[in-house]
Amino acid sequence: MTIQTLSGAVNTAANVYFGGKCVSHTVTLPDGTKKSVGVILPAELTFNTGAPEVMECVGGGCEYKLAGSNEWRKSGPGEKFSIPGNSSFDIRVAEAYHYICHFG
Amino acid sequence: MTIQTLSGAVNTAANVYFGGKCVSHTVTLPDGTKKSVGVILPAELTFNTGAPEVMECVGGGCEYKLAGSNEWRKSGPGEKFSIPGNSSFDIRVAEAYHYICHFG
Repeated sequence: MTIQTLSGAVNTAANVYFGGKCVSHTVTLPDGTKKSVGVILPAELTFNTGAPEVMECVGGGCEYKLAGSNEWRKSGPGEKFSIPGNSSFDIRVAEAYHYICHFG
Repeated sequence: MTIQTLSGAVNTAANVYFGGKCVSHTVTLPDGTKKSVGVILPAELTFNTGAPEVMECVGGGCEYKLAGSNEWRKSGPGEKFSIPGNSSFDIRVAEAYHYICHFG
């Protein structure tokens, strides 16, 4: 089951990465927690993390490979994967990957 | 002055138009009003309206031309323009145009 909505204060300005291959909006929940909702379009990209992140798929899908791994794994609707802080992951998307990014 | 945040329930799945040249997320306000927050990346696009729309710039800028007009006009941060229902407008963006779309 996927999370359909997040309630909070959404930043009206988007975060645009990789020339628009990844676009997200930051949402601040009532308790102050920040998350982002976004989409990755067809591409193969490498993201670096500061804080640890959990990527939760809410539509479409991706394959991802964590730093230090040789294994591409699939992630689809309702599935999550975790990335340590100060690390990186590769992600490849064939159609679209809609996600919630949880920090910390 | 630009609106920095919108409080409500944001749809976690993005709306992707024109192969990603326009990406938005729908936000439902507590009173049930729907708006969207989005970004248009460098492109020249034509959008059709169903309901009337007001486009409010919250970052970057664009030029737009309403159906039936020959005049390109600029819209920057804090500025709005209105499009009638069942009409269309052309928009061209050199860098990025971050917006809130108000419906009805």
